[in-house]
Amino acid sequence: MANVPDTIQTWQMVQPTAKDKETGELIPGKLEKKEIPVPELAPGDVLVEVAGCGVCHTDLGFFYDGVPNVNKPPLTLGHEISGTVVAGDEKWVGKEVIIPAVMPCRKCLLCKTGRGNRCLNQKMPGNSLGIYGGFSSHIPVPSIDLCEIKDRQGIPLSHFAVVADAATTPYQAAKRAALGNGDNVVVIGVGGVGQYMVQEAKALGASVVVAIDIDEERLNKMLSYGADFVINSSGKVPKDIFEELRSIRKQNQLPNYSWKMFEVSGTKVGQEIALNLLSFTGKLLIVGFGLQKLEYSISRLMAFDAEIIGTWACLPEYYPQILEMVLSRKVEIEPFVQTRPMSEIAEAFEEAHKVSPDKRIVLLPDF
Amino acid sequence: MANVPDTIQTWQMVQPTAKDKETGELIPGKLEKKEIPVPELAPGDVLVEVAGCGVCHTDLGFFYDGVPNVNKPPLTLGHEISGTVVAGDEKWVGKEVIIPAVMPCRKCLLCKTGRGNRCLNQKMPGNSLGIYGGFSSHIPVPSIDLCEIKDRQGIPLSHFAVVADAATTPYQAAKRAALGNGDNVVVIGVGGVGQYMVQEAKALGASVVVAIDIDEERLNKMLSYGADFVINSSGKVPKDIFEELRSIRKQNQLPNYSWKMFEVSGTKVGQEIALNLLSFTGKLLIVGFGLQKLEYSISRLMAFDAEIIGTWACLPEYYPQILEMVLSRKVEIEPFVQTRPMSEIAEAFEEAHKVSPDKRIVLLPDF
Repeated sequence: MANVPDTIQTWQMVQPTAKDKETGELIPGKLEKKEIPVPELAPGDVLVEVAGCGVCHTDLGFFYDGVPNVNKPPLTLGHEISGTVVAGDEKWVGKEVIIPAVMPCRKCLLCKTGRGNRCLNQKMPGNSLGIYGGFSSHIPVPSIDLCEIKDRQGIPLSHFAVVADAATTPYQAAKRAALGNGDNVVVIGVGGVGQYMVQEAKALGASVVVAIDIDEERLNKMLSYGADFVINSSGKVPKDIFEELRSIRKQNQLPNYSWKMFEVSGTKVGQEIALNLLSFTGKLLIVGFGLQKLEYSISRLMAFDAEIIGTWACLPEYYPQILEMVLSRKVEIEPFVQTRPMSEIAEAFEEAHKVSPDKRIVLLPDF
Repeated sequence: MANVPDTIQTWQMVQPTAKDKETGELIPGKLEKKEIPVPELAPGDVLVEVAGCGVCHTDLGFFYDGVPNVNKPPLTLGHEISGTVVAGDEKWVGKEVIIPAVMPCRKCLLCKTGRGNRCLNQKMPGNSLGIYGGFSSHIPVPSIDLCEIKDRQGIPLSHFAVVADAATTPYQAAKRAALGNGDNVVVIGVGGVGQYMVQEAKALGASVVVAIDIDEERLNKMLSYGADFVINSSGKVPKDIFEELRSIRKQNQLPNYSWKMFEVSGTKVGQEIALNLLSFTGKLLIVGFGLQKLEYSISRLMAFDAEIIGTWACLPEYYPQILEMVLSRKVEIEPFVQTRPMSEIAEAFEEAHKVSPDKRIVLLPDF
């Protein structure tokens, strides 16, 4: 076995951004390069040499916005991980893998009844896997739910990091929506996750996909990756968007019922647009997260026979299906990924926190 | 054929409650006894002699609260109807029937895909069936979705009126929630509809049913009809209810996830309680209607992997299943029905509008 290290090199979040309780002053978060021991691997665990780890909105929530980690800092963030198994369970060693962002316990009732993605004992790197996260040279993880990449068709291994979360979360959302052939779909927010939502909706057979965003360039790009129509919502109120969608409907003889809508932006405006568009027998999937509250008359759901479905992470058993879509180029990842050396993690966080990047930043270990 | 009349006797809503546009003064709604011609029956239509028609919250919404009817007044309200077919399609004449509150067109895509309850061309007596409603001696209706009562086991025919809506709407809600054996259930509001929600949840196999209401007497009664625990929410805030349910959970080793909750009250407080109780992999069914808005962070649904499902009316194809539950006494209707002469319709409306009655008022034609 090659490359079994004595220690793990890692970028630890020593301290998330905090507020001084007395002065109210913002105390900047701290990332520090650390060297930690390789833990003894439990039966069934493996050690993965990280090829790449994506910078997700969720990491930024932990680092900047006070979203609490399940395991208290110091810990290493990062849950979008691809890499190679270098130690542990013999039958895994040498294999290239995607590590699911959420790893169910596989023992509880939720796991046994198909709801493992929301298992309450789940392990998530960079959150609830002790101190371990993906912004590291190596990470110890359970092997049971690893997704093997048998032939990566010339795509760099690091790029598959985005399959761990950005490209799998939309798939779970599509499954929850029972998305299938002939469906009419709206995707609100085509950033890091929404880009895959659009592509996968189309790949799963959607008849029409309408992408909504505030960024004209992103929207135009999506026209080449699954979107049939785009609506730029910048500077508009929800009613305007409703009218634009209505006009798309009219011009294309599309029904005013049973639309499946995916709110991926996690913003207040995005959610307001979504609620405004929700109508008869419609489904609204909440894929993005934000702390804001909204005003809504939930009785409208009764009159519409409509649903709002929150969707968390993705079942590991779906990963091979998404991987197949990527390898068969039904879902493209290369146009939506950029890589940086992991030593630039602090700058990458800053950049992604300012404006959600057009292409997901995947950090490559350079310890 | 006996009793085929020349005219229909009816209590028409000549005018719903309105506001004088200039003075803002309330103009009371008007119900008037009228005599209207029996229309020519189209092929497939029948004339039903009304045995009883229930006074539903929805009628009161039309009459008092400015909820608009699909067909403009004057029209007769009333959509909870049982009776006997007296004319039209030969194979129906003489049969005792329940008329579904909502009758799908059976021609559109929604109808063909199992969503007929929300068919956009549906006919509802007292709303979208022209001028015809249940507070009448007779009513012409399509026969395709009538539910035949073959042997009513000594229960008065008039009582089956409540099956047309009050007892069927909860069944549709239970189906939408995929309610089944071993489920843990909360029902908020045990009035005219909620009483059946509790009974049917239990009949469908719920392990635990917790009933929440502000009326101690009603709650106590429900302990004999399916409720395992009751919580009186009178004068309490949602957090108090959360704590009471938590204590019920702890004492009975019940999980904190996957609860199925039915909000039947349609009130702001009821909906706030429901949203507050909604947690991991939970489902909240919106069965009651109210015009109010609420503040809520819908991103919680994402974190919880939870759903809010609005549910409208009931598919006619489920009616025989509910009828079976009633006839086999899994669901009792007699303890939850009171009858009055239809000539007291105005007083009955007033009374039900003041306080939702403990027992559904079913009006019996006495023209």
